[in-house]
Amino acid sequence: MAQTVILSLDMGGTTLSYGLVQPDGRVRLQRSIGTFARGRGEAVLEQLLEVTRTLLDAASRRRLRVSGIGIGVPGTVDVARGRIRDNIQNVPEFEGLALGPLLRRRFSLPVHLDNDVNALTLGEFYFGRARGVRNFAMLSAGTGVGGGIVIEGKLVRGRRGYGGEAGHTTVNLDGRPCFCGSIGCIKTYASGPDIAAQARERLGTAQSGRLLELCGGDPQRLTAQEVFVAARAGDPIALEVVEIAARALGAGVANLVNLLNPEMIILGGGVLVEASDLLLPRIRRWAASYAFADALRGTRLVVSRFIKRSSIRGAAALFLYETDRPPRSG
Amino acid sequence: MAQTVILSLDMGGTTLSYGLVQPDGRVRLQRSIGTFARGRGEAVLEQLLEVTRTLLDAASRRRLRVSGIGIGVPGTVDVARGRIRDNIQNVPEFEGLALGPLLRRRFSLPVHLDNDVNALTLGEFYFGRARGVRNFAMLSAGTGVGGGIVIEGKLVRGRRGYGGEAGHTTVNLDGRPCFCGSIGCIKTYASGPDIAAQARERLGTAQSGRLLELCGGDPQRLTAQEVFVAARAGDPIALEVVEIAARALGAGVANLVNLLNPEMIILGGGVLVEASDLLLPRIRRWAASYAFADALRGTRLVVSRFIKRSSIRGAAALFLYETDRPPRSG
Repeated sequence: MAQTVILSLDMGGTTLSYGLVQPDGRVRLQRSIGTFARGRGEAVLEQLLEVTRTLLDAASRRRLRVSGIGIGVPGTVDVARGRIRDNIQNVPEFEGLALGPLLRRRFSLPVHLDNDVNALTLGEFYFGRARGVRNFAMLSAGTGVGGGIVIEGKLVRGRRGYGGEAGHTTVNLDGRPCFCGSIGCIKTYASGPDIAAQARERLGTAQSGRLLELCGGDPQRLTAQEVFVAARAGDPIALEVVEIAARALGAGVANLVNLLNPEMIILGGGVLVEASDLLLPRIRRWAASYAFADALRGTRLVVSRFIKRSSIRGAAALFLYETDRPPRSG
Repeated sequence: MAQTVILSLDMGGTTLSYGLVQPDGRVRLQRSIGTFARGRGEAVLEQLLEVTRTLLDAASRRRLRVSGIGIGVPGTVDVARGRIRDNIQNVPEFEGLALGPLLRRRFSLPVHLDNDVNALTLGEFYFGRARGVRNFAMLSAGTGVGGGIVIEGKLVRGRRGYGGEAGHTTVNLDGRPCFCGSIGCIKTYASGPDIAAQARERLGTAQSGRLLELCGGDPQRLTAQEVFVAARAGDPIALEVVEIAARALGAGVANLVNLLNPEMIILGGGVLVEASDLLLPRIRRWAASYAFADALRGTRLVVSRFIKRSSIRGAAALFLYETDRPPRSG
């Protein structure tokens, strides 16, 4: 009998990852391409259809049977209808799009769709750090900041699919404005673009040789990566911005601990995995200052292990979860 | 066959409520007394034993069969062991006390013990606003600020019983220090004593005829009640403090909405029920400014109806929940 795989897609904030993943989590094929910038919704959809065809061809050549499609998208999803609701940061044109039914009709395969960080969370549950853990939360910082919550082995989606949006909880009543319309969201301190923006704002008023050098003298070209490099070299502005991001994430961890007191909190996403050397000790310190000490002791704080393949594994786990195949106990 | 009742006890921050409650929620007897102030743990325990004896006598006289004891306490509880963990605001001597086993031995009855707001939350689930609702949260402001979370019909207690402590989530990274060791907890803006304290701090620097008059010229005697009376009369300091409390509670509601997207959030506790005319419209406004609009539309925000009897009904519901008697569907 042919090995089955799940056709797995993850629309990140800036990257479209795609691949073929076995039900045991083994990745048979994995690629990614940059997505078009804001305002090119149709082109992004065309990319999505194109990579799906590419994957179906690849599966056919390798004699793999595709059991269905799992997709993570950077926004809120009406899971029952396979429809993107809103909060799509990079592709606002996708708001309201019934992506699930569209792909189902096009490729005659079952399709399951959810928020990208919900998918990441299920990836950790099925194949990653949370195997065998029934109560945990995930906090993921990358282009945006998202989260996922699993209680008693079930993903908490809530009434309209907003469950787990930890990145858009307020930790600062008077804080930075967020694209979501709120103020002081964790996202406004700890996403990659916000880390860069906070460094940029400070470069406007102060001098930082190292940071300016790293971006070729042009603060507009500064990214979170350069902020981390400069912080490791001891640059004070970069260190201040890293501290602010860690403080917001630490308060986010503490709020999850005091609200849900989970067995585990997994930190993931590009920012957290790339700069865990800088961020993790600082997040631990701030979480300890905001959480009940005894509650925090009951929660293991860990970093995701498989960043490069986590997004497509997450999409595959989502498909398994939605088709009622629970994770093998860890 | 004799009617059964649950012997129900609630140790509030300042009041010990006790009564006999039928499994259908009907209250057969309800009383309350003030508890001793901080530092009198033994005396409080003596009070607890005394009212338990009083209730057993009353049940016997009325030919009611007592099926067991349910207790809510203002702190975190190791439910499996019936032991109070910590975060006991008014009776720190109770930390570590195995109150469940103690009462079980003394009265030869099954005893179930949990955090007071977890009990209130179950009270709403069994007899109150959340009958028939499977996913909801409670936010209760009184002497402290607490919370409770029900997901898929189960109370979220978490690894060590801290689940639902919404009052001790941070909404202000640089905010007011809290007795729990953290900073910027919702509690530091919205509990009764904190509302009074914030008014008092402002009276130190400004003049407010109405507020000073209400407390007989002595700011030390000011309570939240007077702040509400003054706010209704248009006093600017009182209105500012009410706005601050509502803003913190509104952010708390928004964070629950974005994290859990529940069907309902119930506001309860002495402060919220007494001043819902002032607080509810302001909480709604702030919640709308901090939450995803579409997520918030899916969540009904309501105020608890039965404040006077809610605490003993909550303790009774806790007993029913722990003895595997689910609520009748609403």
